[in-house]
Amino acid sequence: MRLSKLFTKTNKNVSSDETSRNARLLIQAGYIYKEMAGVYAYLPLGLRVVENVKRIVREEMNSLGASEIIMTNLQRQELWQKTDRWSDEAVDIWFKSKLKNDTEVGLAWSHEEPITDMMKSFVSSYRDLPVNVYQFQTKLRNELRAKSGIMRGREFVMKDLYSYSKDDVEHQNFYDEVTKAYLRVYDRVGIGDRTYVTYASGGAFTKFSHEFQTITDAGEDIIYLDKHKKLAINKEVYTDEVISHLGLTKDNLEETKASEVGNIFSFGTIKSEQLGLLFTDQNGDDKPVVLGSYGLGITRLIGVIAEVFADDKGLVWPEAIAPASVILINLGLSKEVIDSAEELYKTLTMAGIQVIYDDRDARAGEKFADADLLGIPHRVVISEKTINQSRYEYKARQSDNVELVDKENLFKILGINS
Amino acid sequence: MRLSKLFTKTNKNVSSDETSRNARLLIQAGYIYKEMAGVYAYLPLGLRVVENVKRIVREEMNSLGASEIIMTNLQRQELWQKTDRWSDEAVDIWFKSKLKNDTEVGLAWSHEEPITDMMKSFVSSYRDLPVNVYQFQTKLRNELRAKSGIMRGREFVMKDLYSYSKDDVEHQNFYDEVTKAYLRVYDRVGIGDRTYVTYASGGAFTKFSHEFQTITDAGEDIIYLDKHKKLAINKEVYTDEVISHLGLTKDNLEETKASEVGNIFSFGTIKSEQLGLLFTDQNGDDKPVVLGSYGLGITRLIGVIAEVFADDKGLVWPEAIAPASVILINLGLSKEVIDSAEELYKTLTMAGIQVIYDDRDARAGEKFADADLLGIPHRVVISEKTINQSRYEYKARQSDNVELVDKENLFKILGINS
Repeated sequence: MRLSKLFTKTNKNVSSDETSRNARLLIQAGYIYKEMAGVYAYLPLGLRVVENVKRIVREEMNSLGASEIIMTNLQRQELWQKTDRWSDEAVDIWFKSKLKNDTEVGLAWSHEEPITDMMKSFVSSYRDLPVNVYQFQTKLRNELRAKSGIMRGREFVMKDLYSYSKDDVEHQNFYDEVTKAYLRVYDRVGIGDRTYVTYASGGAFTKFSHEFQTITDAGEDIIYLDKHKKLAINKEVYTDEVISHLGLTKDNLEETKASEVGNIFSFGTIKSEQLGLLFTDQNGDDKPVVLGSYGLGITRLIGVIAEVFADDKGLVWPEAIAPASVILINLGLSKEVIDSAEELYKTLTMAGIQVIYDDRDARAGEKFADADLLGIPHRVVISEKTINQSRYEYKARQSDNVELVDKENLFKILGINS
Repeated sequence: MRLSKLFTKTNKNVSSDETSRNARLLIQAGYIYKEMAGVYAYLPLGLRVVENVKRIVREEMNSLGASEIIMTNLQRQELWQKTDRWSDEAVDIWFKSKLKNDTEVGLAWSHEEPITDMMKSFVSSYRDLPVNVYQFQTKLRNELRAKSGIMRGREFVMKDLYSYSKDDVEHQNFYDEVTKAYLRVYDRVGIGDRTYVTYASGGAFTKFSHEFQTITDAGEDIIYLDKHKKLAINKEVYTDEVISHLGLTKDNLEETKASEVGNIFSFGTIKSEQLGLLFTDQNGDDKPVVLGSYGLGITRLIGVIAEVFADDKGLVWPEAIAPASVILINLGLSKEVIDSAEELYKTLTMAGIQVIYDDRDARAGEKFADADLLGIPHRVVISEKTINQSRYEYKARQSDNVELVDKENLFKILGINS
């Protein structure tokens, strides 16, 4: 990708009504565009980050044997009435609209009800179970306030997974596998060391749900964490009873701000009973299916990653989700410099490396500042000086150390077999 | 993909309120699920077809140098008020909802207004133009009736492309390139020979828009086509004046039913003027940007393809968009048969061929009927009989001819270098 061809531009001036750091940085760098509070469009670089995160999550969901589908945004009120989640009193984040015939419809904020109802078309016997399905979908949630940028959107991309099991044992096995898959996701996107399985409220359905909480000052939650055991308790269920139930002791628990980057939930058989999803077991008896629901906000996760790693110069992306591995900068427009930059751009691209080539006719200071703001992991500079020394200038985004390296060492740093 | 692991099942009984042939077949085959009239979920096989079509369209959009982005579903009324498209009288397919503070918001049925407004952040000089952006997005349109299955949904996936040009010449050049790219898409998905560039109403903005119309009895439009010149006129603008303007003669025009699979549109500078998208030209003068808008309904296109090719046994997918190239069937459960089927499944998969392996413990008749219903291009059967003859049984979906072929010939048919 050549910066001269990219229509987005970096922009230091962001409207003062955008108070969240993640959104301010992402807008400045041209990754997102704010349509209204909590509602953001994803521009070419932002969409690349979204797709990189989705790819990692998709791989982990597929490794669980789950099938990808895509449900609908428009939802039938009758399903949510059956489970007492239609009224605005029960669920205070509904967006609703109306068909031409005045029938009220809901806009998707979650999918337990529609997917459970759909499964009645496919599940009737124990032979049909288990079934595990997931989707990446744009969810709409009518949040009263939306002040955390892409960490809490009114419109956002979520991966939601739903499991249908014959009994609690089958359910629990899958639930534990999902827990491990989520932890692999956080490891792969670079926040594994600061992300904790956290006991949280199970609402009406179960004793606890499990959240995955990432330590960050930008977080909206307070958790109490045991660093040694890598376990945490959300403030909402932080009682002596829960602490002892989990075999933890108050002295080892540390209070910290954190942001939820995933939430997994056992619904038991309540929804299947309410919606009539039954199966015939091996003895010929009708039983309700056990439901699990597993959410992971893709854009929220990106917001948290932006908050965690950004510094005063801009964004800092972990390599696995960065919109490019390398930002290549030419300084000066002499034929020698251009030829050398074009050649390296081609070589790296051919080697499968994603490169942003800053080929603009701009000052060095502007190019360096933009490279920092964009947060690309590796910066490579080509100038008359570097050519005269048969070297490239290399700097990692997370280091202040600028070094001159030869081609062999550059390729080694970038993980290319030369 | 093993059919024994796929949660969807073929189902001959589809609710009688689904009257469209494409949706009935797609529901029967387990590709889609009907949430409500005009609103369908995409199940694993259906999602594969959607992704295959998106991949082809994406390649063609990228070949135009357009950048992929993703805009928002929630839209600000103020933008649409400026262009007189907010009221239900002006646009009768709006879904609208409300934020918590009672502000009315629109749900995306198109994106000219938000994208044009956004471009004010990025375009100010002739140096910033042209800009061409596209997205794949779920559009919501509050259709009064939704009786054509996925050919006219209340919720559907659309590729929409928007071009911003300095002047009419630059615009027209791009418009012509898009026309060619669209024709390449229809060729690649298998309907090129029956798809016509069609002159249609330009509304308030331009003399004509151009539709791409595919001949099918399921179509909602009437067009008059000149087969020799590969041009057509939509009934809505079929006048003597238009016929002569296009250099056609009535005698060579044939009336036929067709379905629109794409629509491209010149907006001129009206929207840029209304929304204030101006740029400074080389002489220092402020000018409004020229807008083009180019729609291609992904799920609609799939519905048309289903209608065009389906026969009385079920769906028939062109190879480029089929959820798999091959359906592999084992007849009988002897170790010999299973081993041979597993081996071929592995070999074809390793060769990069998408295979659906019908490994179910089911009767031959059921497997054959499902293979036809699913519409997979190539059917390969392994049984004791075929093993004894060191052959595979091969049948193309579109042929009645069943033949025994050796491995070398099978690989040749499937395009594998053995």
